[in-house]
Amino acid sequence: MYYGSIEAGGTKFVCAIGDAHFNIIERVSFPTTVPDETLARVYEFFDQYELAAIGIGSFGPIDVNPASETYGFITTTPKPHWGNYDFLGAVKERYKIPIGFTTDVNAAALGEQSLGAAQGLNSCLYLTVGTGIGGGAVVNNELLSGYSHPEMGHIIVRPHPEDNFGGVCPFHGNCLEGLASGPAIEKRFGVEANQLGEDHIVWTFIAYYISQAVMSYALTLSPEKVILGGGVMNQAHLFPMIREELEQLMAGYVVLPDLEKYIVAPALGDNAATIGCIMLAKNSLK
Amino acid sequence: MYYGSIEAGGTKFVCAIGDAHFNIIERVSFPTTVPDETLARVYEFFDQYELAAIGIGSFGPIDVNPASETYGFITTTPKPHWGNYDFLGAVKERYKIPIGFTTDVNAAALGEQSLGAAQGLNSCLYLTVGTGIGGGAVVNNELLSGYSHPEMGHIIVRPHPEDNFGGVCPFHGNCLEGLASGPAIEKRFGVEANQLGEDHIVWTFIAYYISQAVMSYALTLSPEKVILGGGVMNQAHLFPMIREELEQLMAGYVVLPDLEKYIVAPALGDNAATIGCIMLAKNSLK
Repeated sequence: MYYGSIEAGGTKFVCAIGDAHFNIIERVSFPTTVPDETLARVYEFFDQYELAAIGIGSFGPIDVNPASETYGFITTTPKPHWGNYDFLGAVKERYKIPIGFTTDVNAAALGEQSLGAAQGLNSCLYLTVGTGIGGGAVVNNELLSGYSHPEMGHIIVRPHPEDNFGGVCPFHGNCLEGLASGPAIEKRFGVEANQLGEDHIVWTFIAYYISQAVMSYALTLSPEKVILGGGVMNQAHLFPMIREELEQLMAGYVVLPDLEKYIVAPALGDNAATIGCIMLAKNSLK
Repeated sequence: MYYGSIEAGGTKFVCAIGDAHFNIIERVSFPTTVPDETLARVYEFFDQYELAAIGIGSFGPIDVNPASETYGFITTTPKPHWGNYDFLGAVKERYKIPIGFTTDVNAAALGEQSLGAAQGLNSCLYLTVGTGIGGGAVVNNELLSGYSHPEMGHIIVRPHPEDNFGGVCPFHGNCLEGLASGPAIEKRFGVEANQLGEDHIVWTFIAYYISQAVMSYALTLSPEKVILGGGVMNQAHLFPMIREELEQLMAGYVVLPDLEKYIVAPALGDNAATIGCIMLAKNSLK
């Protein structure tokens, strides 16, 4: 039994074939160009296999409401050619099999809960801090959704007293993504984040913002595990800084688990979304 | 078939008997004193009926994890005599029937979803703004829980530029509850909230804080409906102010439903938690 995984990012697509035990049989990756061309490469890859189901984790915003007329569409993205695109409809036309559809970060959360850092738990939060900031979550063993999918990268945080940067978010200026994403770091100091030393003030700022966000998420969602991924979080020294800052912010109000085990890096690394998409495919058969 | 409802507040208990159609057969209310005395009044009331199940919505923090050794306990409350109290255990010893147990605000959210403002939806958020600020939620048709229950009253908000008040939260100072609860309003100006006119600056502050909180909750949880209850929200002029502020904060980033219908008062008024506890009782039979 084979399952197809499509991790559709704004920059590249990662497609994979997995079996029921989450073994990856084959994987390909290619740039996200225009829909027709990009999907043609997906089909070329998938056509080599007899698939039982497919899971799609897509960049957004997307419509995840099965009752909606535009269910399965990429909706208001500024990415040229992909706005108002019926992504799920296109794949469904090609393959008459069950297809699960969610955000890339929800897929990563599901992957980590299936086989990674949150395995065996009923809930987890996955936050990616990179070019943008996005979050996904599993609650009561199900992907979090409601009116739409989470957009937790844009929550409001308090600016650090020594940080005068106005933020890069085109909508909100200095929301979380505006202050703590990779582009925000680069624009603040004119160099790439990974060229700034570990003792640079920027990491104090980033830890300050991410810990505030984790506090808000933890108080709102109460996840059993908080997983922080994405390019910015490759700066491993951020983890102890975030844990320490969070401890001070919480001030003992809510008793959290041991923060060393509570706030962690993805156990599956870059595979989280792929594993999640395979799980999504499996679940779509139910 | 009768169901017992216990809405256990820090100031008073409201107990009710309901039938399968949520008709309230009888209701009593009495002050929350010490556990033995208060529970004795609950038993006296319930003993008059043959109950099929009971639902408890309690003040907190409480342990809502069925796998935990202290499941059903009121845990670290500062309220004398109620800390580390095995609330569910006591009621279970008296009545050998199924008993559902959650927070008072989760019960209110469930009530509004069962029969009130969020009827027919799969998700909603209920925020009470009164002596304290607390939130509950239904997600994918289930009460939100994870590591613990939500504690969303304590999330971080940005202070209003003209508000120099340091906040009343003993843990965080100027978190949401510290800045926007009833006591915060009274301490700021030395008079009770309902004695301040509708054009008083305090309502600008309160709308500023609550709209920030609603934005964070909406981006994190994506509820289909946001219900604002509690004493402070009896100031009905706050609703349009909060909607307007939220619209500015979101800046068109996420397309929300018509805010007039999205951010509303409880349709069940003070009955929300009672109806929710009856639903909880019914669900506990499954």
